[in-house]
Amino acid sequence: MQRRGAERVKAILDAAEEILATDGYDAATLKAAGERAGIPTASVYHYFSDRHQVDAELMRRHADALWVRVTEAFEGDDPPATLDGAVDTVVDAMLAYFREHPSCVELWFARRSDALEELVRTFDEAMAEQLWRFALDRGLLRPDTPPMVLRLAFETSNRLFDVAFRVAPVSGDDAVLTELGRMLTSYLRTYAPERSA
Amino acid sequence: MQRRGAERVKAILDAAEEILATDGYDAATLKAAGERAGIPTASVYHYFSDRHQVDAELMRRHADALWVRVTEAFEGDDPPATLDGAVDTVVDAMLAYFREHPSCVELWFARRSDALEELVRTFDEAMAEQLWRFALDRGLLRPDTPPMVLRLAFETSNRLFDVAFRVAPVSGDDAVLTELGRMLTSYLRTYAPERSA
Repeated sequence: MQRRGAERVKAILDAAEEILATDGYDAATLKAAGERAGIPTASVYHYFSDRHQVDAELMRRHADALWVRVTEAFEGDDPPATLDGAVDTVVDAMLAYFREHPSCVELWFARRSDALEELVRTFDEAMAEQLWRFALDRGLLRPDTPPMVLRLAFETSNRLFDVAFRVAPVSGDDAVLTELGRMLTSYLRTYAPERSA
Repeated sequence: MQRRGAERVKAILDAAEEILATDGYDAATLKAAGERAGIPTASVYHYFSDRHQVDAELMRRHADALWVRVTEAFEGDDPPATLDGAVDTVVDAMLAYFREHPSCVELWFARRSDALEELVRTFDEAMAEQLWRFALDRGLLRPDTPPMVLRLAFETSNRLFDVAFRVAPVSGDDAVLTELGRMLTSYLRTYAPERSA
């Protein structure tokens, strides 16, 4: 029974994700997800009280996967050695993830509930701190750079990614994303050590 | 009769604005605004169908006043002569307005309805175009600078003003606003003509 419960939860989540990706936020109701998963509506409410719980759970899956994607890019065989390279690495890793997962874009940027807003904020703050440490360890930023600098860089990224996917759904607008890289690079360079400035 | 209508509309708007400023968004219902203005609830609904109409009308008043404030700073006796000065002028003018009008902050950043979201976006786009023209006329930016650069600068400002007023309600966090100026200046400098770069 317990195992069947876990399987059903996963089936509902996967179905909701598919609907988000193909038909967008409004279509991905709990009822629609249950129908697609072949689970009676009454049983669906046994596992989730409303769609916001499903959205939050999907968002957590995406946040975990995105975290792995970005940190791998920093910890691989060829980590970025310059500040400009580090900005490109993060922007490219996030963009690749969003392009592969339209359901994530639907949830990440529209902020339709306080719970999703909170999840994005928590992710951004944790990721900003991680990248701040990396940049200081590698000497890409001056040792006295306040952690806030990376947090605000993430706030900005979030907003401009949002604009990019509003202008060009699915792919994200390249011109906007180019400007995002330019803005982050020029800002962070003001905190670079003399030698790499 | 018509004049009494206009007076009552103004009284309701002013009352809603006072409640927004002192008690915040949730308290500023249409019913509360009517009570404060001394107008029977039934009559209030004669002028506004719901609070969103009041919010939108207040937002329009603020947008008009903010527009005047920023453009005056550019058209006065002492317009900014450098790119850094222009960024400071805009950020300072907006910050001063928000600090004087907490009701504006309540409506401007929380984006509680699509109508308010749309009003802010329209304002930002119009203001961005105005400042783009000013900067090109004065030679503060290179002639080939895309208008999008100013639009994205406004998207960024909006987000970081939001953060600043979330961190420190009413006054806006100075450290965040300093970083905002730094980010905009460093970004826009990448579009400055050689001589003023």
